[in-house]
This record gives sequence, C-alpha cells and structure tokens, in this order.
Amino acid sequence: MAAADIKVLFFDVFGTVVDWRTGVVRQLEEFGRTKGYEADWAEFADAWRAHYHPAMRAVRKGERGWANLDELHRETLIEVLPRYGIESLSDAEIESLVRVWHRLDAWPDSVPGLTRLKRRFVLSTLSNGTVALLVSMARHAGLPWDAVLCSETARAYKPDPRAYLENAAFLQVAPAEAMLVAAHNYDLRAAQRLGFRTAFVARPTEYGPGQTRDLEPEGERDFVAGSMEELADRLGC
Amino acid sequence: MAAADIKVLFFDVFGTVVDWRTGVVRQLEEFGRTKGYEADWAEFADAWRAHYHPAMRAVRKGERGWANLDELHRETLIEVLPRYGIESLSDAEIESLVRVWHRLDAWPDSVPGLTRLKRRFVLSTLSNGTVALLVSMARHAGLPWDAVLCSETARAYKPDPRAYLENAAFLQVAPAEAMLVAAHNYDLRAAQRLGFRTAFVARPTEYGPGQTRDLEPEGERDFVAGSMEELADRLGC
Repeated sequence: MAAADIKVLFFDVFGTVVDWRTGVVRQLEEFGRTKGYEADWAEFADAWRAHYHPAMRAVRKGERGWANLDELHRETLIEVLPRYGIESLSDAEIESLVRVWHRLDAWPDSVPGLTRLKRRFVLSTLSNGTVALLVSMARHAGLPWDAVLCSETARAYKPDPRAYLENAAFLQVAPAEAMLVAAHNYDLRAAQRLGFRTAFVARPTEYGPGQTRDLEPEGERDFVAGSMEELADRLGC
Repeated sequence: MAAADIKVLFFDVFGTVVDWRTGVVRQLEEFGRTKGYEADWAEFADAWRAHYHPAMRAVRKGERGWANLDELHRETLIEVLPRYGIESLSDAEIESLVRVWHRLDAWPDSVPGLTRLKRRFVLSTLSNGTVALLVSMARHAGLPWDAVLCSETARAYKPDPRAYLENAAFLQVAPAEAMLVAAHNYDLRAAQRLGFRTAFVARPTEYGPGQTRDLEPEGERDFVAGSMEELADRLGC
C-alpha cells in the first residue's frame, strides 16, 4: 500500500520502542546490590511481567474498576516480591521499583528512526502505560513524540477497541489515516480489525534469548520491518 | 519562593505562548485575497474571539453537552461570517478557517525560553484547545512539549477546577508540585485557588494595540516575567 493517506503513526512502546526487559533487569540488579538482596533478576522481571496481561484483562473485562498501569505494576510487584524472599520494603522503595518502568532505554534504532518518521508523520504513543510513565520515559530515552496518548487517556487497555478509537479521535483522524506500529501480533490484529493500517517491527529478543512468540508477523501487514530505521526507509522518510 | 519543589510547568497557550491574533488575522487576510472577500480582518478576528469565553461557559455551566474547542470555533465562525457578508462557504472552506487556530506562530521568546525550561522541568500544555490543535501548533511553531494536555483530556474548560486537577493527575503531581504559566489573571487565580504555583508572563499586545486587560499581574504570583526567557532566568534555567 501507499503511505500517502497516513497522517498519524501510533506506536506501541514496551518492546516495540524500548527494550523493557534489559532495562528492568538492570535496575533490579542495582536495587539488589544497593539493598543487599540476591535473586535471579531476569527471572524476577519475567515473573513480574507475567502478571501484565492478566492484570489488564481484569480491568478490561470489568472485573474491577479502572486502575492505571502504575497501580497494576505496584500490585503485581507486591505479589512477586515475597516469592524472592524480599519483604518489608518501605513505600518509597516500592515506589522506586514501580518506576523502573519509567526509565527504560530505547532500542538503538528507535530514536534515529522516529526522528526521520517525525518529519512526515505525527508520532504518538499508543501504549498501555500511563501518561506520567511515557513522559518520563520520553525524557529519559529522548523519544520525540508529538503526543503521549495511551490506555489512560482512553481509560481502556489494548486490545479493547476504545484504546485505539478514542486516541485516534483525539488526533482527529479516521482509523484508515492512522497506522499502528508494533512488535506484537495481538495488538496489530486488534487495530487492523478497526480499520487502522498496521506495521510489524520485529523485536526477536524482547522477551530474552529464548523468545518463541512474535518472531514473525501474522496476517496481512501494510509494512514489515526489522527496525524503526528500516520502517522509515519503507515509508520513504 | 524557591523553584526546588516544582516538577511540572503547565502553560496556557493562546496568548501566553503563541500570538493568536496576528496569526489569525494574517490567515484571514490570505483567505480574503484568495477567495475575493474584503473585510476588516482584525475586527473579524476580534469578533470571532469574542465568542470564545461565552461558548466555553455554556459547556462549563452544563447548558449543553461536551463540545471541543474546534467544534466551538466552527459554530462561532458560522455565526460571525454572515455579519461580514461571507456566505455559502463549502464545508472544506469552513474547516480550513477553523484550522487557522492550529497554525499560529509563537512569540519570539517562546521557543528559546521553553527549550531552556525543558532541561529542568516537565513541560505540558494546559490549554482550552484540543489535542489535535495543540499537536499541529507544536509542529508548526516548534514548541517542545513533553505532554499535550488540555480541556479535551480533562473534558472540562478552564477555569473549571477539573481542567487543572485532572491534567495534574495525568502527570502524577500534586498541585503544589506544578506551576501554571499564563498571561491571564483569571486563569492564574483559578489555579492558585487549587494550590498550584503561578507565574504571570506579560503579553501586553495579545489583544492588539489597544489592550486594556491583563497588562499587570493581579494577586500574589510566585514569578512575574516579561517573556519565557526571563522566566527561565528567574527559575535558574
């Protein structure tokens, strides 16, 4: 397809733009060194992340009221900590751990790729994160967003259709004028069903060295790329 | 007061950061030249802007449902046009005029001042505009926002307290950790009442050469400056 009708590029962020696992593990290791705890921090990070989809699903299914991702990260952290023998952390220590998700580094191609894409398209996040998280992360990693839209601005978690449609409405674009860029097939599938354009960017080490899912695009994607710079090439930026 | 506790600077935009009147008049003149209409375009701009507060007040008072600022600009434009003998514009022409508010230039000190302030503070809009308007304007004028928050993300127009409090909540700051920067006393007064810090930036020609209001700060402001660069000086940036 041609890119001519696309006005807005929406980006999934965790895994697609930033390398969450490396960043979380590194900060957990620092925490362990400073506070005197030992653990397999990569395993801890994976255990924490394993709560991600179930926690959001409970909100999405209406089994509980709205809770933003920082709140979900806090609740799920408190579930995971005792399994690693970490107890009686202060509120400030818990808060500092919750905020590791605010301080993640971009994949090396993200900033150069986004910078090129921004010349031609409006760039917005479309993440399950919070506004505060995405703003902190953008400042930390130098991500040049035009808008920071997310689950919190739509009060709905992807793949709930409202997460896509309400954020597109904020930018006054029809789904066909917007493209979701993501490394995750479930996300692209949901966006495509609503009429969004879709681009798969492969992140084969997002989940660590043994990654088995999302190695390849599933279904018909408008663009497929191995990096944000390659996506910029494909879009003629 | 010290700036040490401030984390976020919220900015009023129309008049405070951008020179709306010069920009609207210039684009109306272009429209007149292209389409063959003659009018006192400065008077037209003032007449259009005179509907601004009454239109938002009707929403704020609950006399009608939510309507965003682009919708209000469209409605009030349609009221003003016949007074200047301009009739039977196409929808596309109307839309193009509504969008003059998306393409306004910054006051000359805004971009250099904001760029300095951004090194130390999170910078967010807190405007009665729409997300789409503020994003277009930021791209047009080079405004380096970290976040584009506004009446639309809070679904409330300033000076409704929700416009301030809900946008501060998105950035996870208490009112005392945020400062509103504005050229308008009504706006600063409302923010201060809620516990926000306040900075008055004088824009003595915002309403044209005969401006009579908002020439001086009223009440106790934390900072008073004649430009964004002077504000950056005062805040030690």
